[in-house]
Amino acid sequence: MSFTLPQFLAHAIALEDEAAERYTELADMMEAHNNQDTAEVFKDMAKFSTLHGNDIRERSKGTALPKLMSWQYRWKTPPEVGGDDNVSYLMTPYHALLYARENEIRGMEFYRQAAAASPDAEVKRLGREFADEESEHVVALDKWIEKTPRPAADWAVETEEAQSVD
Amino acid sequence: MSFTLPQFLAHAIALEDEAAERYTELADMMEAHNNQDTAEVFKDMAKFSTLHGNDIRERSKGTALPKLMSWQYRWKTPPEVGGDDNVSYLMTPYHALLYARENEIRGMEFYRQAAAASPDAEVKRLGREFADEESEHVVALDKWIEKTPRPAADWAVETEEAQSVD
Repeated sequence: MSFTLPQFLAHAIALEDEAAERYTELADMMEAHNNQDTAEVFKDMAKFSTLHGNDIRERSKGTALPKLMSWQYRWKTPPEVGGDDNVSYLMTPYHALLYARENEIRGMEFYRQAAAASPDAEVKRLGREFADEESEHVVALDKWIEKTPRPAADWAVETEEAQSVD
Repeated sequence: MSFTLPQFLAHAIALEDEAAERYTELADMMEAHNNQDTAEVFKDMAKFSTLHGNDIRERSKGTALPKLMSWQYRWKTPPEVGGDDNVSYLMTPYHALLYARENEIRGMEFYRQAAAASPDAEVKRLGREFADEESEHVVALDKWIEKTPRPAADWAVETEEAQSVD
């Protein structure tokens, strides 16, 4: 899909707002489960997304932006594990970080494709710039994922001391 | 997952609110594309969901409800057709109705499973009652789906006069 500049800006604002909301949710959940380190990661990510969204809003002043539908920017629902119980799944910092990473990659791909497909020079420039920012978020999440113990494959029925397995 | 009554009520309110929001979005989109009949269907569905949500809120007065995460109640993102272009996909009333139906079925299944899995008599009673309401919505949507021309398999590149095919 080839975006005009207003379409691109509307998507970018919506993507950043959605990311800020999802990161805040993840941070709250980590705090409620006393995973303070991971909560801080998600709070930082929420802050970056809010700042970025506000920057784009500022650049968009004076441009009439189209109204988007929720499914044009929402994060994917996390994969389900063990039926409906995908909440406890995300309560492990490891899985929450992977979930965030998956959605950052989607954001990055959205921006790259928008840059590639649009004939508009400004969409190309901003699309590349925003894709690079998302890719920095992926790198930041990867660092945290590396530091975070991977739960055992059967973590749901194991103790919390379970260590990394393939 | 076996729900306590407060957990069940929190999910039910969130499900109905989410449905009301999504139906309102679908109605707005149909109106913007001059599909007034389908817009009316979605407006009615939004109204039922709002009323039902308010009923459940009323019953829940005095009960402390847990906070839910967005992924515990959100509608599934509609399936993508032709890459990122899932918006034009939903712009056909036929596909929008199928999308709504899929999510009503998810709601129905949620309520049935909650009724089946909970030892709480009130969760069982309400779960069955709410599942029946969702199933009436599915029947209502099915009637509209029957009346709605099915776009050709290659509708995206066809004219709007395209008729039903398998």
